[in-house]
Amino acid sequence: MAEVVHMIDTEVFLAFSTYATIVILKMMLMSLVTSYFRLTKQVFANIEDTTLVKTTEDRKKLVRLDPDVERVRRCHQNDLENIVPFVMVGLLYALTGPDLSTALLHFRVFVGSRIIHTVTYVMALPQPSRGLAFGVGLFTTLSMAYRVLTTALFL
Amino acid sequence: MAEVVHMIDTEVFLAFSTYATIVILKMMLMSLVTSYFRLTKQVFANIEDTTLVKTTEDRKKLVRLDPDVERVRRCHQNDLENIVPFVMVGLLYALTGPDLSTALLHFRVFVGSRIIHTVTYVMALPQPSRGLAFGVGLFTTLSMAYRVLTTALFL
Amino acid sequence: MAEVVHMIDTEVFLAFSTYATIVILKMMLMSLVTSYFRLTKQVFANIEDTTLVKTTEDRKKLVRLDPDVERVRRCHQNDLENIVPFVMVGLLYALTGPDLSTALLHFRVFVGSRIIHTVTYVMALPQPSRGLAFGVGLFTTLSMAYRVLTTALFL
Repeated sequence: MAEVVHMIDTEVFLAFSTYATIVILKMMLMSLVTSYFRLTKQVFANIEDTTLVKTTEDRKKLVRLDPDVERVRRCHQNDLENIVPFVMVGLLYALTGPDLSTALLHFRVFVGSRIIHTVTYVMALPQPSRGLAFGVGLFTTLSMAYRVLTTALFL
Repeated sequence: MAEVVHMIDTEVFLAFSTYATIVILKMMLMSLVTSYFRLTKQVFANIEDTTLVKTTEDRKKLVRLDPDVERVRRCHQNDLENIVPFVMVGLLYALTGPDLSTALLHFRVFVGSRIIHTVTYVMALPQPSRGLAFGVGLFTTLSMAYRVLTTALFL
Repeated sequence: MAEVVHMIDTEVFLAFSTYATIVILKMMLMSLVTSYFRLTKQVFANIEDTTLVKTTEDRKKLVRLDPDVERVRRCHQNDLENIVPFVMVGLLYALTGPDLSTALLHFRVFVGSRIIHTVTYVMALPQPSRGLAFGVGLFTTLSMAYRVLTTALFL
């Protein structure tokens, strides 16, 4: 067990664990935002879910699409497409032994870019704000992938 | 290599590997269920896939949506949104050195909740059964994330 | 830190890091392909994105679905459903200490199958080409999961 404790104790790995967990929690928050909008706006994907709200409407009509719900779901999907690669590449990156300051820069920029991305998406702020936030996050992950490939290349 | 073997030999990490693999296999099963429904109900997302079945119908009409297929796909999507965070947070959690019994409780409750979630979703059981299964799984991952952040916090 | 460097220095783990990063980059490429199609074909999911292109059309009409964009998005979704499990199971597999040649075989076959899958999907090549590529990738991940469960089983 000594080695495992040792590993989780390197500062780069501790920093990775912290920022990865924060950004995963941010991603999971989208599920709750979706549920909140579904319940308050009475918009459902399944007929059995309509029993969760009191309504005088025909329940079948509550199974429908809503622009706000779909917006949150697109934001969640974009998180899956970007945060999951960040965590997977970031884990390998943390194991290549980068400088702590360089690693922290990557983790902080990525997490910041995704929080901004979520705000710009959910509030529908004018472009290119969301595009830039997406691009900065993508570039951060690519930079870590470059380090993994140049440090660990074994084909 | 000694350290790696050592790491995979800690009981918490072995338990994590076992339960993570089981729940990932459950998630991958959804792909096969979708394929099964697409082939038996003759419902496709791509025109080139319609050649996989014998039919007398106009093949373009087989590119359509079907409630049963969409239900399985929503269940699969919910797995991606919940099981992937569990595995990523769970890996970090396993490395924080929790008690074996506490770790096992988290892993078992999560895997159980997701199996129940799948059954309630695919069979369209009355709410709040699916909502509860979803909530229990979410809470388990949040509990592990809390341990990671309180043990490894490095901002 | 010694153990971490040691871990990333085992050949199986280096090979895993390399192939996992390559296939994650392939998955991330789908985001860029989607953006490229959206901008060149002027097809958007959000009203605020329509300001990214010059057009004489009513901007609300640019928020629409397009078969080519949807095809790339389905390919991306299939990547999420298959590449993410590969990386997560593959990490655990690499830690079970498999033979280097066996591990390389798994990693190479999987990455090759997903590149072929993408080509067959985006170019809409006749079935069963895409189905076979999907099946080979799935089988590779299942084979790694089998090794994890038989080596590390701890319920």
